[in-house]
Amino acid sequence: MIPRLNYDQRGLIPVIIQDIEKGDVLMMAYMNESSLNMTIQTGFTHFWSRSRCKYWKKGETSGDVQEVKEIFYDCDEDTLLMKVKQHGRGACHTGNRTCFFRKIDSMNKQEKETGRK
Amino acid sequence: MIPRLNYDQRGLIPVIIQDIEKGDVLMMAYMNESSLNMTIQTGFTHFWSRSRCKYWKKGETSGDVQEVKEIFYDCDEDTLLMKVKQHGRGACHTGNRTCFFRKIDSMNKQEKETGRK
Repeated sequence: MIPRLNYDQRGLIPVIIQDIEKGDVLMMAYMNESSLNMTIQTGFTHFWSRSRCKYWKKGETSGDVQEVKEIFYDCDEDTLLMKVKQHGRGACHTGNRTCFFRKIDSMNKQEKETGRK
Repeated sequence: MIPRLNYDQRGLIPVIIQDIEKGDVLMMAYMNESSLNMTIQTGFTHFWSRSRCKYWKKGETSGDVQEVKEIFYDCDEDTLLMKVKQHGRGACHTGNRTCFFRKIDSMNKQEKETGRK
């Protein structure tokens, strides 16, 4: 059922997590083959922590679990996209809903500068 | 203007590309510091090809360029999210709009099995 995926040299594959209802990208983390299997079997995201070298169920302590609704793989078979229902406050350990809560301003400045001409 | 980012050992950072209007995730690719600068300066995505070891402007030959509207960085400063206006047919070299055009069926099967009980 799981296609052949191209894991990297560490045996990992990056996984983009997107909210299935709101469509916002919540986080990116890494799975190995075992944590992908755990994810599929349980229906909740499990990742491999590169820094702690262990498996973790997302939200296990906080309750902010992610219920997996759809899994897609890309043309190179080296990245996954999971559409999830995010429970609790959100995905980020900082307390923000998304890990991508900070914006690089340069694009706006560039637009404003262009607009002035 | 650009925050300090955590590039990996190869000097690369993964970049998620999301359509700013439709909200679908189109692709993931890698930038290094130079291609990120090119992207910001030109307003169009430029990546670093790991297999070809060269810079490439997305859509340079096909015309399917990506106009960058917003750039976000995550809590660990090791992943970028770019919201773009996708020009042309789409983002994937296969001709599909998104690189994530194939779904892993197991989730659905699991749901169906659960539904039967």
